[in-house]
Amino acid sequence: MPQVRFLPDEKRVDASLGEGLLELARRANVDLAGPCGGKALCGKCLVKIIEGKDKLSDPTDNEFFVIGTRRIQEGYRLACRCRIVREGEVTVFVPSESRLEEHSLLVEGEILEERFDPAITCLRVKIPARAYGSIVENLPREFSFRLTALRKISKFSGSESEKELVVYNDEVIDVRDESRPLGFAADIGTTKVAGYLVDLKSGALLAVASDLNPQIAYGEDVVSRIDYALRNGVEELRTKIIDCLNKLITTVCDATRSITENVYEFVLVGNTAMQHFLLGLEPKTLAYFPYTPVTRSPMNVKACELELLGNPEAMVFIPPIIAGYIGSDVLADIIATGMFRGDDPEMLIDIGTNTEIVLKKGDKFLACSTASGPAFEGAHITHGMRAARGAIDRIEISSNGEVKYTVIGGTRPIGLTGSAVVDVVAELLSARIIDESGRLRELTDRVRMGKDGYLEFVIEYGENTATGEDIVFTQKDIREIQLAKAAIRTGVNILMKRLGVNPSDIRRLYIAGAFGFFTNPLSARTLGLYPDIDVSRIRLVGNSAGAGARAMLLSKSLRSLAYELAQKIEHIELAAEPDFQKEFLKSIPFSDRI
Amino acid sequence: MPQVRFLPDEKRVDASLGEGLLELARRANVDLAGPCGGKALCGKCLVKIIEGKDKLSDPTDNEFFVIGTRRIQEGYRLACRCRIVREGEVTVFVPSESRLEEHSLLVEGEILEERFDPAITCLRVKIPARAYGSIVENLPREFSFRLTALRKISKFSGSESEKELVVYNDEVIDVRDESRPLGFAADIGTTKVAGYLVDLKSGALLAVASDLNPQIAYGEDVVSRIDYALRNGVEELRTKIIDCLNKLITTVCDATRSITENVYEFVLVGNTAMQHFLLGLEPKTLAYFPYTPVTRSPMNVKACELELLGNPEAMVFIPPIIAGYIGSDVLADIIATGMFRGDDPEMLIDIGTNTEIVLKKGDKFLACSTASGPAFEGAHITHGMRAARGAIDRIEISSNGEVKYTVIGGTRPIGLTGSAVVDVVAELLSARIIDESGRLRELTDRVRMGKDGYLEFVIEYGENTATGEDIVFTQKDIREIQLAKAAIRTGVNILMKRLGVNPSDIRRLYIAGAFGFFTNPLSARTLGLYPDIDVSRIRLVGNSAGAGARAMLLSKSLRSLAYELAQKIEHIELAAEPDFQKEFLKSIPFSDRI
Repeated sequence: MPQVRFLPDEKRVDASLGEGLLELARRANVDLAGPCGGKALCGKCLVKIIEGKDKLSDPTDNEFFVIGTRRIQEGYRLACRCRIVREGEVTVFVPSESRLEEHSLLVEGEILEERFDPAITCLRVKIPARAYGSIVENLPREFSFRLTALRKISKFSGSESEKELVVYNDEVIDVRDESRPLGFAADIGTTKVAGYLVDLKSGALLAVASDLNPQIAYGEDVVSRIDYALRNGVEELRTKIIDCLNKLITTVCDATRSITENVYEFVLVGNTAMQHFLLGLEPKTLAYFPYTPVTRSPMNVKACELELLGNPEAMVFIPPIIAGYIGSDVLADIIATGMFRGDDPEMLIDIGTNTEIVLKKGDKFLACSTASGPAFEGAHITHGMRAARGAIDRIEISSNGEVKYTVIGGTRPIGLTGSAVVDVVAELLSARIIDESGRLRELTDRVRMGKDGYLEFVIEYGENTATGEDIVFTQKDIREIQLAKAAIRTGVNILMKRLGVNPSDIRRLYIAGAFGFFTNPLSARTLGLYPDIDVSRIRLVGNSAGAGARAMLLSKSLRSLAYELAQKIEHIELAAEPDFQKEFLKSIPFSDRI
Repeated sequence: MPQVRFLPDEKRVDASLGEGLLELARRANVDLAGPCGGKALCGKCLVKIIEGKDKLSDPTDNEFFVIGTRRIQEGYRLACRCRIVREGEVTVFVPSESRLEEHSLLVEGEILEERFDPAITCLRVKIPARAYGSIVENLPREFSFRLTALRKISKFSGSESEKELVVYNDEVIDVRDESRPLGFAADIGTTKVAGYLVDLKSGALLAVASDLNPQIAYGEDVVSRIDYALRNGVEELRTKIIDCLNKLITTVCDATRSITENVYEFVLVGNTAMQHFLLGLEPKTLAYFPYTPVTRSPMNVKACELELLGNPEAMVFIPPIIAGYIGSDVLADIIATGMFRGDDPEMLIDIGTNTEIVLKKGDKFLACSTASGPAFEGAHITHGMRAARGAIDRIEISSNGEVKYTVIGGTRPIGLTGSAVVDVVAELLSARIIDESGRLRELTDRVRMGKDGYLEFVIEYGENTATGEDIVFTQKDIREIQLAKAAIRTGVNILMKRLGVNPSDIRRLYIAGAFGFFTNPLSARTLGLYPDIDVSRIRLVGNSAGAGARAMLLSKSLRSLAYELAQKIEHIELAAEPDFQKEFLKSIPFSDRI
């Protein structure tokens, strides 16, 4: 009988001929994402075949298109496309990027193995019926007690019983018959909020949920939300994000049939503005140079004080702010990627509405933040849209202007995701339909004069789109992308200059954030978004801020590390750098692409 | 013009001939009690004339009666009876026992001078409009911040301002334009609760209030209240005492036109059972041997968690429990008396429904607790009553059975206070109307057979009483007193034996509690309540538990001292002592009186 072995889970499952790897993974209880429903569209069920390639069906055209020939040759497949066709054993490696809905990191797992040391621990104890000294002195260790826990102990005293203490650091915060303490980590992004439910005894990730940050109603970017808070106070923004977190907490608890009362600790990360809104701090001095936060210190507050759902005694840890707009999410990135280890130069780019860049060399860390805007999320682009049904997410344009694309959900297209936007620009550049300055050249019929007087490239004609309208990419769209790319590239270049690092010195480039995860790194490099380094050194780490938050939830020593890093990292205020203007202008053309 | 100088206040006031000292003290703004309204009845306005005795009117008969000849000779007077009769200067010392309604200690003042170091401090700071790092990093010292204080700081940021930080240890808990931080100390007695409002900046005592402990409705003594809690839960007892404390807080704040929001810290002391009720801890293991408290540790909890009125961020400190029934009130006694200093043997007896005894010699401290019952508070005595209008509070019985007495409020008598009860027994003993075994002897017409078959001594006949009934003291009443006295004396003797201390070794005997304060120490010694030591070594320290609570409110180092003492003091469980029975039986007769 054919057998499949899943790594790193070390789970085995018996298979029948004709069965698909995605179903087998589910039967073996291996988390493997498949949001597109097995249509080979989303590419999220990517696995690597370690042994037994010949026992599987051949790669499909679709797979070649989504994964690329090189990766197919390396053994990568889409699990949803692979069927068992021959007897024997197949060994499949499931990268953590392919797990569940969110993307975590391999490296996070390694780090936690060394550092598993949660602030919440449990201890089973006998409560004596008769004792000298005091009841709590007769427990096996010396603890301090929260009042509510002391009241519970007093209720159980008087007859011998066995209970479980829930301990936060050295303080008993609850006493129960049995406990299964849970933790909730969240990355509060300007656009998206991702929440993770974690078993604090085993460290296992139990459930993931995410939602749009409802503060979007007050402005898409950080600056307009700060502006809103200055005029109306921070309270509305605060309650919005708390409501959102509570919805996520309820979702992940419901999904695992847990009660929120079992949630004993939270780790929440976000950029500086998000941290201020979350805590209800007026962001007055964040509004002008030098963009001063109220505090940079890590916070430990009671969840009920923030009005978060959870155990009444639950605590919230919010890691420190590095400086200015560079918040705890960047610390979480650094922790999740493990880039705090080793001496070789490494760089992290967390691309979002605000993009944060960190460069490390030896013991030195530099960080900066740049307002790259929402263009990479599809906003401010004529036919840009979020990654939803009907969005083109991958595109190829040949030198004669022929266009091939995939659509999320397999329907007729409506518009372009941010990753497709990057593909479009990169492909148009490769086809020389865009020149180095970013100008569209009328080399094909698809380039025409649009209604508003700008040249535009037609991606799909109305007869083939869902709306009946042509999907186009305009000269103005190219300019938006150029400005966004220049903002990021300026930061990258200034940090490299400051530490005397050349692109070829960079051992690893971590690209964090959903945009980077879904974007073809070759396209992004063609665009000049990333420094000119070998693609093999690029690591797409997805929501590493969420992964870092989860790691801190499970490790007190990683919290200390976050504190040390926050002290150590030097913040570069880009706008205050003497060569900022020059670097920015230099970064606008596409001339630094390979 | 005659002049009066009040010590230790160092206040001077010009006087006219004929003016009384009590009025002059009020004019000079010197706190001096006078609850009986200047009728020379309560003895509470006791002062000592240091210089200028001859400038004052002669002592009245009333004064001789209330103060006693010896003290008159030492210069003591009742301020309400002294008038200026000659030109010149008079120097008057006002002992702290004579201040306000409650009685504090001289020694407490000395201790605090060395140790003034409250947990709550204030710091005036500039909040910068523009700063590097973070707003809080630019404050003159490094603090941690409570969330609410951080929110206030954020509100004040953005333009330069000057504010006052209210700091608890090293944590900022409030930010205000100006602050006058107040503290509230209370001694929670089984019968009475006394509360003190203190200015935490100056250490000044601002107001005092007291009330009956409303838990009395659930039983007069600790054991019956514990019993109630075992049957019905502790919650009712908890809310009763919290309501009572909140009433006292409101009273003292109203009296000084303060708002409760200015109260930033509480120090609450009480016996072990009171501490359990206050914290809402079920007293299950307190109900049986070895009378184990839930915890002995000191507690720092938020006032709002206990539902106490005060600033929302206010903290409550509850000192540790020594052991069994010996609670933080005894630590407060030890701190207030200063008996933790020096090596000579010193003893403290805090007489109440439960009587606590502490004996010190060198570095050794022993403590025990004994259920002396409420007889000394007038309960279980045929005509016993609380110290209220109509209560006989002092009494003299001559050897021929003639009776002289004073009545609170100067009305016809209704009954006897606890102190009068002690007087009655001591006087009857001196007149040999009671023999050493405690039997009434029919040596005068006032001794007669009562209706219930017991001999009784008639203190006042119906025609002179407020009720028309005879006020009597029965053989049964004498037995009650004997048992209560034996309970205390047994403890005293066992502790002395354990440390090898003889009465003559005791440098000082501190008598704490309202009963002891109002009771003639000679009568008490005649009864055999106190060990046989010279009266000059006895210090009536009144509510020293309240004074000690106040002292801890003003001094962190005294809190540490309380912690050290709680570790050091050895608790003697009297009932478990091998010679307990023998000592108790030996203590019942009145034979050990002088």
